[in-house]
Amino acid sequence: MKLRVDLLPHGGYSDTVLVVDILRATTTAVAYLERGASALLLTRSPDVALALRDTTNAEGDTVRNERYLLGGERGGLPIPGFDFGNSPVEAAGQNFTQREVVMNTTNGTGAAHIAATSGKHVLLASLVNAHAAARRARALAVEEIAIVCAGTDERVSLEDVYAAGVLAEYLLAMGEFTIDDGARIALTLRRNLGNPLEALSSSSHGVYLERLGLGDDVRWAARISESTIVPTLEAQQGREGVLRFVAG
Amino acid sequence: MKLRVDLLPHGGYSDTVLVVDILRATTTAVAYLERGASALLLTRSPDVALALRDTTNAEGDTVRNERYLLGGERGGLPIPGFDFGNSPVEAAGQNFTQREVVMNTTNGTGAAHIAATSGKHVLLASLVNAHAAARRARALAVEEIAIVCAGTDERVSLEDVYAAGVLAEYLLAMGEFTIDDGARIALTLRRNLGNPLEALSSSSHGVYLERLGLGDDVRWAARISESTIVPTLEAQQGREGVLRFVAG
Repeated sequence: MKLRVDLLPHGGYSDTVLVVDILRATTTAVAYLERGASALLLTRSPDVALALRDTTNAEGDTVRNERYLLGGERGGLPIPGFDFGNSPVEAAGQNFTQREVVMNTTNGTGAAHIAATSGKHVLLASLVNAHAAARRARALAVEEIAIVCAGTDERVSLEDVYAAGVLAEYLLAMGEFTIDDGARIALTLRRNLGNPLEALSSSSHGVYLERLGLGDDVRWAARISESTIVPTLEAQQGREGVLRFVAG
Repeated sequence: MKLRVDLLPHGGYSDTVLVVDILRATTTAVAYLERGASALLLTRSPDVALALRDTTNAEGDTVRNERYLLGGERGGLPIPGFDFGNSPVEAAGQNFTQREVVMNTTNGTGAAHIAATSGKHVLLASLVNAHAAARRARALAVEEIAIVCAGTDERVSLEDVYAAGVLAEYLLAMGEFTIDDGARIALTLRRNLGNPLEALSSSSHGVYLERLGLGDDVRWAARISESTIVPTLEAQQGREGVLRFVAG
C-alpha cells in the first residue's frame, strides 16, 4: 500500500483521500456532525451556498429553506449572509439535528473539491477524529492513501502538515506502506514539534486566529482522536459544485 | 527582515530569491562555474537551448556555435542532442573556460524562471555553496529573502526542503528574521533528519538517482559549503526565455 502526503492539493488521486484543513474547516466539519447535522454540503463558492438556502418566489421575495444552515469564512472572518463562522467552538454549542450545514471556506472546501475530482473515497480528517479517519482510510483503500493538506492561500500550512504526520503515524502502525517525501516530512514534524497545541500555536494561522480572538478554536482543534465521526463523501453526488458528506 | 520558504515555487517574490534544486540543477550550476564557465543560460525549454547552439546556414547545414555547451536532463536522463547530463560529477571533470553552459532541467530551470518573473535578485543555492549563498542573500535583501524549493514534478522534495533548512539556519545566525511556516518546516527537517547525506539518501529522488547509477552525484550534492561561488542572475536579460547567471 502506498502512503502519499501532498503538502498542498495537487490532484491525481486514484483511491482514498484524507483532506486535512485543521484550522478550521475539517475540525468544524466533525463538530457539525457531532452536534447532529444530517449532512455537510461543501460548495465551490459562497454564492453556491447562498443559492442553496435562499430562493426567490413568484412575488420576488427571498424564501429561506430552513433545512440549510450556512457556515464559512474568508480570511478567518464570517461570510456576510452566512449563519455561522466556521468555528468548532461555536458549532459545539448548537444543535443541528435535521439540518444540513452548507460550508464554504478559504482553503478546505477547495481542497475537498480537488480531492473529489478523481478520488474514489474522500474523507475529512482533523486531529479530533485522527484515529477514526486513519482506520476508515485503511479499511477503504486498495492501493493508495493520499493525505491532502489544504494549506493557506496556496502556501503550505505547518498545522496541516503536522496533522498529516499524526495520521501517517496511525497508518504506519496499522500496516505496511511505502511512503513518499511528503509523508517523511510530515512524520518528521509530528515527531519533533512537540504536542499538538505547541505545533498549532506556533503556526502562522494559529497565531492569526489567536489575534482574531479565536484562540479557543485553536485549542479545540489541538485535541487528538476525541471523535469517531469521519465525514465521508457520498458516492452519488447531486448538484453541480456541491459535495455532500455524511457521518461515517 | 522576512524569511520565507516556499516548499514549491509559488511566485510573487518582491526582493531576494534563493532557488534550490540540489538534486541536481543548482548543485551542477555551481560546478559549471567552478570549472570556468563564463555564464550559465537557463532556458525555458530544451528547444530554446538547442536553438542557441545550433543554427542553419544558407546552405541548410546546421552550424554549431562553439561558445555554447548544453547540459540538462529529463527524468534524470540526458536530453538528446545535449552535451552534458546535469551531473555535478561529470561537470567537475571538464574545463568550461570561455564557454557558456546552456541548462535545461525538469524542475530547477523552471523554478528559476518563476523566481525571475518578480524577484529583484535571483541566486542559485545548493548545499555546496550554502554559506556563501546565504551571505550574499543577506547582503542584497532589503525586506525579504525567499528560499524557493523546486520540488519534483510539482511535488515537494525532501532534499530541497532540507537544504532550505540549512540556508535558513545560516540566515538566522546572521540577523533577525520573522519566519513563515515553510521556514519552520525546513528548520525542523534540518535539525532532525541527520547529516546531509542521510537526508539526501532517504529522499525519493536520491533513491531514484542511485538506481540510475548516479549515486556519486548524490554524495557530491551532500557536501556543505565547499564552494563560495553563487550563480547570480544578471540584471540585464537578453533573449526571451533565457536567464543568464554569472559567478557572484
